[in-house]
Amino acid sequence: MLRFNEPEFLQQMASTVALRPQIEELVDRLVDEGFDNLFLVGAGGTYAQMWPYEHLARRSSTLSVRAAMAAELVASGDASLGERSVVIFTSVSGTTDDSIRAIEHCRAKGAYTIGFTGYPDSPVAQKVDVALISEPKAWPFDAQMLLFMGRLLSRRGEFDGYGKLADELAALPQILVEVARQAEPVAAAFAEAHKETDYHFLVGGGNLWGFTYLYSMCILEEMQWLRTTRVHSAEFFHGSLELIEEDTSLIIFQGEDETRALTDRVEAFARRICKDVTVFDTRDYPLEGISPEFRGLVAPLVLDTVLGRVSKHLERVRDHSLDLRRYYRVMDY
Amino acid sequence: MLRFNEPEFLQQMASTVALRPQIEELVDRLVDEGFDNLFLVGAGGTYAQMWPYEHLARRSSTLSVRAAMAAELVASGDASLGERSVVIFTSVSGTTDDSIRAIEHCRAKGAYTIGFTGYPDSPVAQKVDVALISEPKAWPFDAQMLLFMGRLLSRRGEFDGYGKLADELAALPQILVEVARQAEPVAAAFAEAHKETDYHFLVGGGNLWGFTYLYSMCILEEMQWLRTTRVHSAEFFHGSLELIEEDTSLIIFQGEDETRALTDRVEAFARRICKDVTVFDTRDYPLEGISPEFRGLVAPLVLDTVLGRVSKHLERVRDHSLDLRRYYRVMDY
Repeated sequence: MLRFNEPEFLQQMASTVALRPQIEELVDRLVDEGFDNLFLVGAGGTYAQMWPYEHLARRSSTLSVRAAMAAELVASGDASLGERSVVIFTSVSGTTDDSIRAIEHCRAKGAYTIGFTGYPDSPVAQKVDVALISEPKAWPFDAQMLLFMGRLLSRRGEFDGYGKLADELAALPQILVEVARQAEPVAAAFAEAHKETDYHFLVGGGNLWGFTYLYSMCILEEMQWLRTTRVHSAEFFHGSLELIEEDTSLIIFQGEDETRALTDRVEAFARRICKDVTVFDTRDYPLEGISPEFRGLVAPLVLDTVLGRVSKHLERVRDHSLDLRRYYRVMDY
Repeated sequence: MLRFNEPEFLQQMASTVALRPQIEELVDRLVDEGFDNLFLVGAGGTYAQMWPYEHLARRSSTLSVRAAMAAELVASGDASLGERSVVIFTSVSGTTDDSIRAIEHCRAKGAYTIGFTGYPDSPVAQKVDVALISEPKAWPFDAQMLLFMGRLLSRRGEFDGYGKLADELAALPQILVEVARQAEPVAAAFAEAHKETDYHFLVGGGNLWGFTYLYSMCILEEMQWLRTTRVHSAEFFHGSLELIEEDTSLIIFQGEDETRALTDRVEAFARRICKDVTVFDTRDYPLEGISPEFRGLVAPLVLDTVLGRVSKHLERVRDHSLDLRRYYRVMDY
């Protein structure tokens, strides 16, 4: 696989699911002590990665769980944030300024702060009340969030089968390597066919809407300098659809949760107009060892792995390094 | 003013603020009876128009107030939606399918439903528990939402000066006509300068993020078939900024709330790179009769009026009717 360091990938993913005992101990302690609400705070990609877990809580829990942008939380505050609040941060490098300021803000309000990061000596890890450390550069944080939310909702009587889910997640590293392997030719073909494409239209819903936003903003725009638009499956028919033409590159992310029908509706419509519809559907991957009832929950991880392959092939065919930045951490602001 | 029907505009806006007594009576009754949470449900533009009021509640209230996409709410459900819930819908025509289905969903869950629309015989008006009717085609719904939220938070002891705010809103129709008049040459100049521009990059934050999304998706994309990207001020530095070049049309929406500094940071950075930065700043408008402490709250209305002028001039210079659709309500789906 192109620029895929399999041992490193396995080690990184294994380090995320290995946090299970620490996460469970933490959740159990928090539930036993009691708290009123949960904030999931990030910036850019780490903000988008919180959305599936706000979505999960909305549909199945009466606990107030809210994703928030770090910089806006600091600027606007939140009247519900206080001593009875728990706040989760994730940061690959542990050095994101917006998140560091938000940790300080939340702690000043008396909230209990949790940080997932790959660097124990980083500012994020040092500033939070409790840091749970995976391997350096481990990404994404979905496994940790699934374990945290699954255990939490399970303790509240709002989630069935947590133990089974957590057991199955142990096999995730190897499962995702298989996903990557299967995705490789699909990714290469997509990249080859879109070598000259300068605009992509992205659609996703349910627990994949966060990844839709992330892939549009943090990969295609930030890392490939490609223009995009991104729209939620439920919003597609209320505006952006008018942009679709026969040759528009329409990228649809399809998962396996209860919003699948909304995304199907988009696809069915788009195929009547557009000849360049690409559907990345997690259902195409066997995910051996994951029970049918949990497939929807791991879809963000599956999709991240599949599109990770696409990114590497876009980098190759477009001869545009994913690490190249004009401004971010290059210019001061 | 180009295609501006002043008597009609005045009549429509007057009909929205004239709902004050009905809104206050409704809020008072709901507060007296008690309820646990508030949902603000829409689709496309009416969804985006709810965001300022979720934002207002987040920063100042401990009540759970959540904006939701009509179609997703139906597909995913919400564990907090029930007999102790109040749900607000807005719909210009009163015929949006997604919203009609969501009203049925919410009523089936036992929630109390409120509808703001211009048509008393429309499905939305007929299906909700209580419909509050403005003039046909009256838009936007910000005045009604401000009155509703202001009264509600005031009754909860979380908002000061509601009576004064509501008194001042009575002058809104005339104030907004003055805004439109002042914006006219600005709008014409922007349109003339961007006659050939095929891509706009929109940024806004705080209570203007909803309008940023709306203007990008429902006006530039839907009504002008122009490509755009839209990003929240707090998210700008985490991805999309890499797309900015010297000649990118960057449109910044600036208001007067506590997030102003986040948008200022975007502007300061962008001006170092880009020669085509346009800032639509509500501070440029006198808004005679609106107290300084309420200017930030009415910013979405001011901006809607200013950009309404821009839309009409874009229509003119681009010779592309705002009413032209390829697909929406043209094709079935």
